[in-house]
Amino acid sequence: MDFRSDNTAGFAPQILSALAAAADGTRTSYGEDEQSQRVQTQLQALFETELAAFFVATGTAANALGLSLLAPAWGTVFCHADAHIAVDECGAPEFFTGGAKLQSLAGEHGKLSADTLASQLPGGIGVVHHTQPAAVSISQASEAGTCYRPEEIAALAQVAHRHGLGVHMDGARFANAVAHLGVTPAQLTWRSGVDVLSFGASKNGALAAEAILVFDPARARSLGFRRKRAGHLFSKMRVLAAQLEAYLCDELWLRHAHHANAMAQRLAAGLEAIPAVRLCHPVEANEVFVDLPEPLIQALYAEGFQFYRWMDDRSNTVRLVTAFNTRPQDVEALLAAVKQHAGSTG
Amino acid sequence: MDFRSDNTAGFAPQILSALAAAADGTRTSYGEDEQSQRVQTQLQALFETELAAFFVATGTAANALGLSLLAPAWGTVFCHADAHIAVDECGAPEFFTGGAKLQSLAGEHGKLSADTLASQLPGGIGVVHHTQPAAVSISQASEAGTCYRPEEIAALAQVAHRHGLGVHMDGARFANAVAHLGVTPAQLTWRSGVDVLSFGASKNGALAAEAILVFDPARARSLGFRRKRAGHLFSKMRVLAAQLEAYLCDELWLRHAHHANAMAQRLAAGLEAIPAVRLCHPVEANEVFVDLPEPLIQALYAEGFQFYRWMDDRSNTVRLVTAFNTRPQDVEALLAAVKQHAGSTG
Amino acid sequence: MDFRSDNTAGFAPQILSALAAAADGTRTSYGEDEQSQRVQTQLQALFETELAAFFVATGTAANALGLSLLAPAWGTVFCHADAHIAVDECGAPEFFTGGAKLQSLAGEHGKLSADTLASQLPGGIGVVHHTQPAAVSISQASEAGTCYRPEEIAALAQVAHRHGLGVHMDGARFANAVAHLGVTPAQLTWRSGVDVLSFGASKNGALAAEAILVFDPARARSLGFRRKRAGHLFSKMRVLAAQLEAYLCDELWLRHAHHANAMAQRLAAGLEAIPAVRLCHPVEANEVFVDLPEPLIQALYAEGFQFYRWMDDRSNTVRLVTAFNTRPQDVEALLAAVKQHAGSTG
Amino acid sequence: MDFRSDNTAGFAPQILSALAAAADGTRTSYGEDEQSQRVQTQLQALFETELAAFFVATGTAANALGLSLLAPAWGTVFCHADAHIAVDECGAPEFFTGGAKLQSLAGEHGKLSADTLASQLPGGIGVVHHTQPAAVSISQASEAGTCYRPEEIAALAQVAHRHGLGVHMDGARFANAVAHLGVTPAQLTWRSGVDVLSFGASKNGALAAEAILVFDPARARSLGFRRKRAGHLFSKMRVLAAQLEAYLCDELWLRHAHHANAMAQRLAAGLEAIPAVRLCHPVEANEVFVDLPEPLIQALYAEGFQFYRWMDDRSNTVRLVTAFNTRPQDVEALLAAVKQHAGSTG
Repeated sequence: MDFRSDNTAGFAPQILSALAAAADGTRTSYGEDEQSQRVQTQLQALFETELAAFFVATGTAANALGLSLLAPAWGTVFCHADAHIAVDECGAPEFFTGGAKLQSLAGEHGKLSADTLASQLPGGIGVVHHTQPAAVSISQASEAGTCYRPEEIAALAQVAHRHGLGVHMDGARFANAVAHLGVTPAQLTWRSGVDVLSFGASKNGALAAEAILVFDPARARSLGFRRKRAGHLFSKMRVLAAQLEAYLCDELWLRHAHHANAMAQRLAAGLEAIPAVRLCHPVEANEVFVDLPEPLIQALYAEGFQFYRWMDDRSNTVRLVTAFNTRPQDVEALLAAVKQHAGSTG
Repeated sequence: MDFRSDNTAGFAPQILSALAAAADGTRTSYGEDEQSQRVQTQLQALFETELAAFFVATGTAANALGLSLLAPAWGTVFCHADAHIAVDECGAPEFFTGGAKLQSLAGEHGKLSADTLASQLPGGIGVVHHTQPAAVSISQASEAGTCYRPEEIAALAQVAHRHGLGVHMDGARFANAVAHLGVTPAQLTWRSGVDVLSFGASKNGALAAEAILVFDPARARSLGFRRKRAGHLFSKMRVLAAQLEAYLCDELWLRHAHHANAMAQRLAAGLEAIPAVRLCHPVEANEVFVDLPEPLIQALYAEGFQFYRWMDDRSNTVRLVTAFNTRPQDVEALLAAVKQHAGSTG
Repeated sequence: MDFRSDNTAGFAPQILSALAAAADGTRTSYGEDEQSQRVQTQLQALFETELAAFFVATGTAANALGLSLLAPAWGTVFCHADAHIAVDECGAPEFFTGGAKLQSLAGEHGKLSADTLASQLPGGIGVVHHTQPAAVSISQASEAGTCYRPEEIAALAQVAHRHGLGVHMDGARFANAVAHLGVTPAQLTWRSGVDVLSFGASKNGALAAEAILVFDPARARSLGFRRKRAGHLFSKMRVLAAQLEAYLCDELWLRHAHHANAMAQRLAAGLEAIPAVRLCHPVEANEVFVDLPEPLIQALYAEGFQFYRWMDDRSNTVRLVTAFNTRPQDVEALLAAVKQHAGSTG
Repeated sequence: MDFRSDNTAGFAPQILSALAAAADGTRTSYGEDEQSQRVQTQLQALFETELAAFFVATGTAANALGLSLLAPAWGTVFCHADAHIAVDECGAPEFFTGGAKLQSLAGEHGKLSADTLASQLPGGIGVVHHTQPAAVSISQASEAGTCYRPEEIAALAQVAHRHGLGVHMDGARFANAVAHLGVTPAQLTWRSGVDVLSFGASKNGALAAEAILVFDPARARSLGFRRKRAGHLFSKMRVLAAQLEAYLCDELWLRHAHHANAMAQRLAAGLEAIPAVRLCHPVEANEVFVDLPEPLIQALYAEGFQFYRWMDDRSNTVRLVTAFNTRPQDVEALLAAVKQHAGSTG
């Protein structure tokens, strides 16, 4: 049983079917087809606003392209020290921005606070010796499996905007945050001050599809060129559009997220009841971080359970990730194993 | 009927089925799954050599990443004036190399000759004022729908290697070239001196899949990092691997190319017989370039035939592209229409 | 006797004296000192307009930084095929712009015509597959030693601005052009539509000093950051400011240029009278290009005259450059030698 | 009296004289002149080893070009959190490396320890998701005015080299460190494992001159191209060579540093005796950092003393920098004023 990541999971049948339905016939390439246009409209409806949407295949591309709209080459991008853009994208934001500096900041449970951001500003704005504060990027849900409330986002955005910074949201697990918080996509984004969102589908049942949403379309004028020169413009755009249309249809995205979140809650609730186990963060999305005794980790690995130590190979913190298709019996099997070994090894 | 491009065509059923077959179960992400490894082996078998293969989704990504292995930021990449990398990738090679200079050269029927390349060399090698000759890139099949013979490639490669340049092949239509020339992939590439190949599938029945093949694996050491920071590393690598495995299985890639080429030959043969029509280039792949009288172009557009003027909106040269799924009756319908209107308008 | 380049010449005494005068006392660094501010004002007076001036030490830095204001990473910069930015800066414009494409165009006697520029436009403006026309760069005086008239510049600028392109002037030999044409700096630049000028001093008696002049200061907002991150912001800015102040004082810049031009005219007049010699271009600045018989070239080299073949080592075209301190007797000596050997070897 | 920085000081007369001596006559440009070659030899003699030296005008250029030899675009450069390259170069290292990531680390008194570096390694070496540890950069003297002992450098270099990282030394104040430690330049650099040194002169009496020293010349092969495309290759290289030759002649560099250090010691000794004043760091070069009561700071400003609060405008820590030409009476004047106001305001 695999709790390594939501990207070790496969594809949802509805999304595969949409690809099959898009297989025949010729279509204008590079996004000028009707389906691609339709998904634009659907995203506008979902987010209740005008927006410019650009489809790409990976979250790293979405993040880095989005950030390149907000930060010049001499810009500073503030983010949490654990942010995916800072530690897991091999310098993609630096590449796409032409060399901007990511400034990692501390924050409890994977979240950046408005106060922490404020403490960095104005931070040399206007002084040529220093890279210029340009953007703040937050992950929703965060890398610790927690969620920013709309008011937390608004507070961050207020600080950011007051100093001329743009607000980027890495929404690789945006659906999980919406599902957990029970608020609208609009509330979690532009209504709270988010300027650019990476709207992820790949971790939530799609094959490989993300949408970069720019809430002020005027700001997106260069994005078509940026995407093309980065090799991220699909010729057969229907490949991405069909996935996204199925993802949006009948709230598949939200249903998937509700399921994954529920599996995480079930897992967390079960683990919490076991004395040898300590939950590291509130469980608010589809990730559960727990400290486990080393023999317990070994025992679980020996039984074939798959999961990662976090963030390094010697850590006793493990990350357990559920997905759109995690089965309750898998969660129960893991819980049973933990219980069994926690007793015998603890 | 659509003769605009091979990228306006859809997906082959075998490739869709492979994706469906890969949908379930969890797999190690980022290319460490068995299928991804298997395709590596299949590519080595097909090319009869050790090689390092990196999968990406677009031809532009494949070309730009491949070139970044060969040319430093202060390098010169020689290519044909019509090369896709020079005119149709919005500066992707410049982006991925960090600013290398593409030096466009003339060449009959879309092909670069060894003599033309030789005339540019040594070209300031070692002189700090000039960008340094670093690579030559050729398109196989070329943008004019012609093919380089192994001996032509070898002659180019000999000139290139003598001066320390790498040889890159944009093989977006590599299959069509193999099909036309009846030689092995090995003969068309490393046996003739090609160092890096963009092995294309997207234009030939896949959804979006290309493989960057580096024939000296030691040369590919940085490619994993380059791909990741460019956002081209798929988390669910099975998405690309499944497509490529189906593409390679039972020579689907070659059968597709034979079909597309045959359709182009049929079209060319029919057009050649019409006095008002002039073929611009030998037809050696799946593209037919013809000069048509303006009224004939208008008449064909009016009947709903789709195709592009080449290379600009005022040109009377049109490009007709066939694909893996072009139907004979579509070719016949186009020929009939040309005949009809050539008579009435000519 | 050395006719290789105006950069093999030394420094003018007035400029050295200015450095000596600036040696003592402490001053605010990085350009906030009074002298640096004063030179800004002097440049505004000379050019009869508001402008933003940024001092750097080399022409390549001035050009590349200036172009980076006009062209995005996905931009196209049109220039003459012989332009210094295209062939002699090792890709600096590509580096500073983040990968823009230089599109070399033909033009008689080193000059680009408005018609040639117009033939390239709109050139795919708005189409994501193509780099976007962003700027035109002209050299004044040109690499062939010729000068653009104000009306020629205005015609080019009109075409450029009509399509949204910026106009850059590489003025490494701007002084020579002003001296030759007898027009004002304003007429040769912003009054004719130039947006950014590299105002050169290094080739005209300074040690190493250039000013990037941006005629719309709002356009220069990012330039301070660009200069700093490129390592071109001098801490002791007086080093550049003192040179430039001396250069501007009592029209030293213009007097130097008049002298160098006069020496070139004298040389050209003498050479023109010799049957074995063919002038390649009108002599309008401080460079004389002549075709010489090979034995004559050899004979001159043997006598110790220094000059370069143009543009390569096998060429029989030679470039003879005069400078602010070229002596009449050196010109006469060269003429005498040419006459002597032209007779005996011709 | 100005204690703001060693870059608010002027030029040493010996260096000015050297420029005057270099003013006349023509010379081969771009560093092929005899003086430039001679300085190479002198640097090799001073450092007792083969090395490749490249002259540039600014410390930022020296650092960023040097780092670009050690770190690929996907590399990580470790440095102290206060390092000039991290906080005062507006992203130059990122620009020149093509986007490498600077990882700031803590360290007492401005110095990085081998243990701290070791704690970061191997740090994801070989994992494509992470930027790759590529170099460590240390400042000698440090930004806190302290010096690394040879054994400290060796310990850092050992950790670095064990993991394949290069070692860069920002030697903007290298002379002050040599003067303080009484060891040879060789001991402080390659003998202790330094791979690339920015050998600064600008802060120590030159106008604007630095040398990038690469102790393994093979590693410097690309540096000529990198320098040129960055606009840092001077055409009249004598401008830099003459400064550096005078700087090296009769150990001017070391005598300057001894003087500046002595002035700092005198200042520190005087300050230390005043109860209201707290020294923040050991004084080992030409910088003194002290905590002062706010009224005292105000009083000193009111009397016209110039110095900076460190690192921000609200700080009560001030930095006092001495230079090659700081006069004892200036130090005494400052001490007298501090004493006077410390009594009355304390």
